Amino acid sequence: MDTKKTFVPVERNSDFSIHNLPYGIFSSDSLSPRVGVAIGNQILDLSQLESAGLLPTSDMPVFHNNTLNPFISLGKAIWQQTRARLQSLLDADNPELRDNQALRASALIEQAIVQMHLPIHVPSYTDFYSSREHAFNVGCMFRGPENALMPNWTELPVGYNGRASSVVVSGTDIVRPSGQIKAPDAERPVFSPCRKLDFELETGFIVGRSNALGKPIPVEEAHEHIFGMVLLNDWSARDIQQWEYIPLGPFNSKTFGSSISPWVVTLDALELFRCPAPKQEPLPLPYLRETRDNNYDINLEVSFDVAGEETVISKTNFKYMYWTMAQQLTHHAISGCNMQVGDLLGSGTISGKEKNSRGSLLELTWNMSEALTLQNGESRHFIEDGDSIVMRGYAQKDNVRVGFGEVRGKVLPAHNFNF
Amino acid sequence: MDTKKTFVPVERNSDFSIHNLPYGIFSSDSLSPRVGVAIGNQILDLSQLESAGLLPTSDMPVFHNNTLNPFISLGKAIWQQTRARLQSLLDADNPELRDNQALRASALIEQAIVQMHLPIHVPSYTDFYSSREHAFNVGCMFRGPENALMPNWTELPVGYNGRASSVVVSGTDIVRPSGQIKAPDAERPVFSPCRKLDFELETGFIVGRSNALGKPIPVEEAHEHIFGMVLLNDWSARDIQQWEYIPLGPFNSKTFGSSISPWVVTLDALELFRCPAPKQEPLPLPYLRETRDNNYDINLEVSFDVAGEETVISKTNFKYMYWTMAQQLTHHAISGCNMQVGDLLGSGTISGKEKNSRGSLLELTWNMSEALTLQNGESRHFIEDGDSIVMRGYAQKDNVRVGFGEVRGKVLPAHNFNF
Repeated sequence: MDTKKTFVPVERNSDFSIHNLPYGIFSSDSLSPRVGVAIGNQILDLSQLESAGLLPTSDMPVFHNNTLNPFISLGKAIWQQTRARLQSLLDADNPELRDNQALRASALIEQAIVQMHLPIHVPSYTDFYSSREHAFNVGCMFRGPENALMPNWTELPVGYNGRASSVVVSGTDIVRPSGQIKAPDAERPVFSPCRKLDFELETGFIVGRSNALGKPIPVEEAHEHIFGMVLLNDWSARDIQQWEYIPLGPFNSKTFGSSISPWVVTLDALELFRCPAPKQEPLPLPYLRETRDNNYDINLEVSFDVAGEETVISKTNFKYMYWTMAQQLTHHAISGCNMQVGDLLGSGTISGKEKNSRGSLLELTWNMSEALTLQNGESRHFIEDGDSIVMRGYAQKDNVRVGFGEVRGKVLPAHNFNF
Repeated sequence: MDTKKTFVPVERNSDFSIHNLPYGIFSSDSLSPRVGVAIGNQILDLSQLESAGLLPTSDMPVFHNNTLNPFISLGKAIWQQTRARLQSLLDADNPELRDNQALRASALIEQAIVQMHLPIHVPSYTDFYSSREHAFNVGCMFRGPENALMPNWTELPVGYNGRASSVVVSGTDIVRPSGQIKAPDAERPVFSPCRKLDFELETGFIVGRSNALGKPIPVEEAHEHIFGMVLLNDWSARDIQQWEYIPLGPFNSKTFGSSISPWVVTLDALELFRCPAPKQEPLPLPYLRETRDNNYDINLEVSFDVAGEETVISKTNFKYMYWTMAQQLTHHAISGCNMQVGDLLGSGTISGKEKNSRGSLLELTWNMSEALTLQNGESRHFIEDGDSIVMRGYAQKDNVRVGFGEVRGKVLPAHNFNF
């Protein structure tokens, strides 16, 4: 494996090697929000490189901006030119940036001193349901094993429109939602803070190229429309969800917050980790049939952080996903729906076959029938006030590591209603 | 009834009386997109009045803009001041604009020569399901009469997140969607152009004031967060919907186009037509309990336009809605969801009790069991290529009429796939 070397210090197990170079939006006490790429424990400020005339975008500046959308809108050729140029500028053997002491001092900033922001303006957020193991587990609990996997599930990537306004960046606190909850034996629902607050371990991808209303995206071109991926925690209020979701799907149970990681890992950086998806039976209808491997081998894990003490409660992998991102995007647009640059498409909860690879508490505790024990001795069925949930992910092959960092969120007590 | 008089000619049955003054975005061969209000057969160009220093917004110009969002963001006090000022400027007894020949000639433009645009940038689109008659009718057909109205329906305004990117203005052609359709007796679905293309007669309201993530909107304040209303045709592919919608709700069957009228009628203009909603039993939970009448008496109708010949196929009224707009908005935000200025919230299909007051073809033809006969002698079960659907609405009390104009859309043949 040819591993590139950079003059920036990068620890061996860093998520942010020169092979990665994920994009994010950061600010500091002295710097307004702008685009940077992570490298080791530092961030390279692309707005400064652009101003210095060092980037392919220098004639059409896009990096002194508080979202990635203007850069993404320039298209895949520019994404690839910029990536190649950044790898060259960071190369240990290239003196251009390495020996420019003033620019280096100014444009390389410690991650520890910055504030990360939502990287994307998200015009629309869609969430899929594409892990077969997750769909089966949840279906068992909500509808019983005989109806667990609905007949349409193996024919199309089931999904629904989410709420874009409540997509927030890692580190944003989540207020416990309140809503209608109905006990199975109660005559009527009650209004209450959610008692079954859950996470969903997901990834999401960012649409990088739009299509016009009425013009679908062929599946063999779908990957050309994808900019990159993030980690996604699709917070879920299970008790609210169970009462509200028939017949039009989840609504209030999902609209109070969806957290994403601050760094967008490009599909180009993940190319090395591309792999086949699980065999699809029956063979999908022609519009969903792929000839290219469109899945990715990405390790994922979830932790509880209670008062600073972390417990890993699940480990799984993105490669278990039944439907690929390309299939999700093609299906989304097949009716003519116009996708927009910045749209966030969630994978759906990613569960593996093993018990400790399940991607939600609903599954891990089998709807409260088994408690999880944390490092500090406490037990949990669902998330309590003050708990933080942390998700991490990385791909690794030989010495090349490309990681996502983390998505983290802490749960605050419910809003105080005066009735 | 005190009816105001304007110097602009307004026919007796015009939707656009001085009591209305709905806002829209228009352009012409010589004018870039900007805000106007409709009056009779003309449009008053607010960007010109603003530039002339005649409006409350003249110090913070918002009308030379291609969306209403900047104006709406200024808040209810400004909406009301602007409305009062426009009624004064158009008053037959006020010489200010009446006798300013130059400004009058320039700022009053014939509607016949302009192009109307989408009036709002719609950050998110949500669709409810709040007509009891519609929910019962559809439930009967999809799930049988015993499960027609789900237990949650009388407890909360059921709704789902729609797709904002495909909200289009009246006059935009709609390409017939393609997708998966499964016949009841078939083993697998087929990929096909939609065979059961339908309209849904709805109104939508525009959110005028945001709330922060985690901060719900009390029901008694909800009307303060609503700017105005539009007509909405929520085009629906019934065959795609029936196969895809379990368990996460409608998706491709609704994302290929949702048409709205170009004129936004303000809640202030509709105040005269406010009326009680149907009695709600059981009494809703406290967070949804209203003390104020929040429904509106608005006549609605739908026509087929086939080769220029129109047939009215349904007449109904907004006042039949079981859940009010205030309850919909409060319920939407109760979990902490942050609503944004410009969000479009659809009523759901509005059906009355009578057969000829049903708001969709699915109901009017009882899922193809009865054909409709059109004026030209043709019959229809669902919408055919080349058909236009036209919806109109108005409120009237004594001599005061406040109307919506129309929302119109023509169906084009499906995209041609090469497989």
